[in-house]
Amino acid sequence: MRAPLDMSAFAELQGLLDKLAVFGAEAGGGVTRLLYTEPWRAAQLFLEERMRAAGLETRFDRAGNLYGRLLGADPAAPVVLTGSHVDTVRSGGRYDGAYGIAAGLLAVAALKRTCGAPLRTLEVVSLCEEEGSRFPLAYWGSGNATGVYGLEDGAGIADADGITLAEAMREAGFGLEAQTPCLRRDIGAFVELHIEQGIALERSGRRIGLVEAIVGQRRYAVTLTGASNHAGTTPMSMRADALAGAAEMLALLETRAKAAGDPLVATAGRLEAMPGTPNVIPGEVRFTLDIRHDEDAMLESFCRDTLAAFAAIARRRGLGFASRIWLASKPVPMDGGLTGLLERACLARAYSSRRMVSGAGHDAQLFAAVCPAAMLFVPSRGGVSHSPDEYSAPLHLQEGAAVLADCLYELTYGQEWQR
Amino acid sequence: MRAPLDMSAFAELQGLLDKLAVFGAEAGGGVTRLLYTEPWRAAQLFLEERMRAAGLETRFDRAGNLYGRLLGADPAAPVVLTGSHVDTVRSGGRYDGAYGIAAGLLAVAALKRTCGAPLRTLEVVSLCEEEGSRFPLAYWGSGNATGVYGLEDGAGIADADGITLAEAMREAGFGLEAQTPCLRRDIGAFVELHIEQGIALERSGRRIGLVEAIVGQRRYAVTLTGASNHAGTTPMSMRADALAGAAEMLALLETRAKAAGDPLVATAGRLEAMPGTPNVIPGEVRFTLDIRHDEDAMLESFCRDTLAAFAAIARRRGLGFASRIWLASKPVPMDGGLTGLLERACLARAYSSRRMVSGAGHDAQLFAAVCPAAMLFVPSRGGVSHSPDEYSAPLHLQEGAAVLADCLYELTYGQEWQR
Repeated sequence: MRAPLDMSAFAELQGLLDKLAVFGAEAGGGVTRLLYTEPWRAAQLFLEERMRAAGLETRFDRAGNLYGRLLGADPAAPVVLTGSHVDTVRSGGRYDGAYGIAAGLLAVAALKRTCGAPLRTLEVVSLCEEEGSRFPLAYWGSGNATGVYGLEDGAGIADADGITLAEAMREAGFGLEAQTPCLRRDIGAFVELHIEQGIALERSGRRIGLVEAIVGQRRYAVTLTGASNHAGTTPMSMRADALAGAAEMLALLETRAKAAGDPLVATAGRLEAMPGTPNVIPGEVRFTLDIRHDEDAMLESFCRDTLAAFAAIARRRGLGFASRIWLASKPVPMDGGLTGLLERACLARAYSSRRMVSGAGHDAQLFAAVCPAAMLFVPSRGGVSHSPDEYSAPLHLQEGAAVLADCLYELTYGQEWQR
Repeated sequence: MRAPLDMSAFAELQGLLDKLAVFGAEAGGGVTRLLYTEPWRAAQLFLEERMRAAGLETRFDRAGNLYGRLLGADPAAPVVLTGSHVDTVRSGGRYDGAYGIAAGLLAVAALKRTCGAPLRTLEVVSLCEEEGSRFPLAYWGSGNATGVYGLEDGAGIADADGITLAEAMREAGFGLEAQTPCLRRDIGAFVELHIEQGIALERSGRRIGLVEAIVGQRRYAVTLTGASNHAGTTPMSMRADALAGAAEMLALLETRAKAAGDPLVATAGRLEAMPGTPNVIPGEVRFTLDIRHDEDAMLESFCRDTLAAFAAIARRRGLGFASRIWLASKPVPMDGGLTGLLERACLARAYSSRRMVSGAGHDAQLFAAVCPAAMLFVPSRGGVSHSPDEYSAPLHLQEGAAVLADCLYELTYGQEWQR
C-alpha cells in the first residue's frame, strides 16, 4: 500500500517546477507556454532529457505528447499511466499541469531507482495541450491519445494569427508518419495529480482532494432584444431596457444557483450592452452562461428551468429572447476503485483528505472514456490559478507526489491489481 | 390671441425640412450635420438665403449662430426670439432642431407678410450647436448667446481627430473680430418649438406638449471590484462576482425609479464586465448611471439614497465600490406666463395639449437663465429620435408652427405683453 520511498525522493520537486517555469517565463512572474510555440518545444525537450536521465525510455507521439516508459516484467499487461499537460494559459502559473508531470516523473524515477522493474509497465506523460489557449480547442493531447480527436481535426482550427493547428504542429516538428501514432489502446489506468485551482482544500484544512467526478458543463450565449431609446424622454413604464432585463435574469441566476447548492456553479462571465452610450437605453444585451454540476440530470434540469425563467422574464418585459448552447460536456465520474486506492494511501500516510468534485475540466476526463481514471488534488493558496499568483506550498506538493507514488506502486508492483 | 394666419402659411414646412435634410444626408436616410463641417456650413448659408428671401435682416455672430430679424416699431423694446439648433447627432433625423428653425422662419415670414412690422423686434435663430456630437461640449450656440460660454472655451476642446473647437470655428469662417459678438443682452423672451423625442404625446393622443420644466441630470460612473476567479472551481458561496453585484444594483435601480414615479428616469446605458471571458468570474464591472428629474431635491435624494444602497450591496458582497459624478445639471423651470400663453393658443385652436416635463436637455434651458423662456413639443412617432427613423406627421408639424406663430404674434404685435 505504501511505496518504499522516503520524502527525499521528492526533494527536488520545487526545483524541477522552477526549471520548467523558465520555459515561457514572463517579466511579471507568469508563464505562457502555448501549444507548439518555442517555449513549449523547449519545455518538452527539457522533460525528455530528464526522463532519459532517470533511465526511462522516451518517445514523442505525432501530436507531441511525450512519454517516459519504465518497462514492466509483463509487457502485455495494460500500462499504468500518470501525468498531466505541459501547456499553460496566457500568463498562467507554474503549477497547473506542470505539477502532475514533474511529480509523476520523480515518482516513476524513484520507484525505478528503489524497486527496479515493475510487474506492469509504468509510464509518465507530458501531454501536449489541455487549456485551449492558443487554438479554440482543448484537450488536444489527451484527445488524440484516447481517440476523441484525430490529427486531421487540426486542419480547420486556427489561432489568432490565422495559423492552423495542423500548420503549427508541422512547424514544431510533429505530425510525421515516422512518429508514433497517438492513439493508445494499451492503457489500464490513468492517474492525474493536479493543483486544486479552487479554495475548498484550503478552507477545509485538508491536504489531499480525492476527485469523485469532473463536472459536466454547459455554456450558452443569450441575446436580449429590447428598444434602444432616449434615456431622458422615455418614461420608466414605456421602456424595453435589455440591460434591466439582463440584471433581473442574472440576479435570478445567482439565487437559483445558491439554492441548488454545491457543487452547482453558474457564471455569467461576459456581458455586452449595446449601444453602450450613457444616455441611451440599451436595446440589446448579450451574455454568456457557464453552468456546471457533477450530475447530468441536475445540470439538465437547472439549465432548462433557468432558461425557461429567463424566457418568462423576457416575455413579461417585452424583450426578445434567444439562447444558444455552444458547449455541452457530460459529468465524468472517476473510477471508484482507483479513488479508493488513493484514499487508502492518504490514510496510511495520515494525510487528511476529502472527496470532492472537480469544477474544472482535466485530461483525466478524456482517459476515463477508455480506462479507469482517477485524480488527486493538492491545495492552491487562495484558490488562485490561471494567474502568476498561482501557488502551492512545497510540503503540499511533496505530499501529493508521495500519495501518487503509493498508488502507482500498488498498481504496477503490487500482486493484487488487475490480475 | 390668434395670429391672423391660415394654415397655408405652413404648407411648405415639410418641403423646407426636406431641403434642410439634404445637407448631411446619408445613404441610409439619416442626417449628420456636425458643428462647423461643410454640411453644417451649407445648411446655415441655405437658411440665411431663405431668411433674406423672406425680407428678414440676417447676420451671423462670431460663433456661427444665424439670426433673421424683423425690426419692431420700438427698437429699444426687448427682442422676442424663436428658433432651435441646426446641428444633428451622427445619423440623426430631419426634425430634431431643424423643425424649430424652419417653423420659426415660416412663422416670422408669414407674420411679416400678413401683419407688417411688429411693435417689438422679432427674430428667428438657427443656433449653431446643441447636441455635443462632434466636440465633448453641448449648447455651444445658446451657451455663447447667453454668456454661459465664451469663445475662448473652444480652445481646450478637441474632436476625435484632434481638431480643437477653436480651430474648427476659424476654418468655418467664424470667431472673427469683425463679426457680431455672441452675447445677447437684449432678449425679452425665447420660445422654442421642438419634436418631443418621447412617446408621451403619442400615447396620450395629445397634439401639443407644453413644457413646464426641463429635467436636471446627474451622471455617474460606478466601478465595482471583486475577485476574478475560475468559474468552475469557485463555489457560489466563495465568490466576489462583480457582475452579480452589478445585477443586484441595476435591479434595485429600476425598482426604485419606478417607485419614485414620473418624471424620474434612471438608466444604466453602459456596462463593461472584465475580463469578459465566459469561464471566468468577472472581477471588475464599470457602469454608468443617468438619472433625471424636474425637482432638484427629488433628484438629489434619489441619487444619494440609490448610491448608499449600492454601497451597502457592495459591502455585503465584499466588493469594492467607487462612484464618480461627471455631469450635474439642475432642473430648469420654463416661464409660467409664456407657457400659459402657449396653452391659451392651443385652446383657441382647439388643439389638445398637455403640460409635461422635458426629459431631454434643450437650448431653452440656457436662455431661461437670462430671459423668460418656453418650449412646446409636437408628437414624435413611436417616441423615436436621434435616428434616421425620427418622424413627425406633417399635420402635427403645422399645428405646432401655428401655435408658435400665435404666441409670437401676441408677444410682438400685441399691446399687452411686457409694457
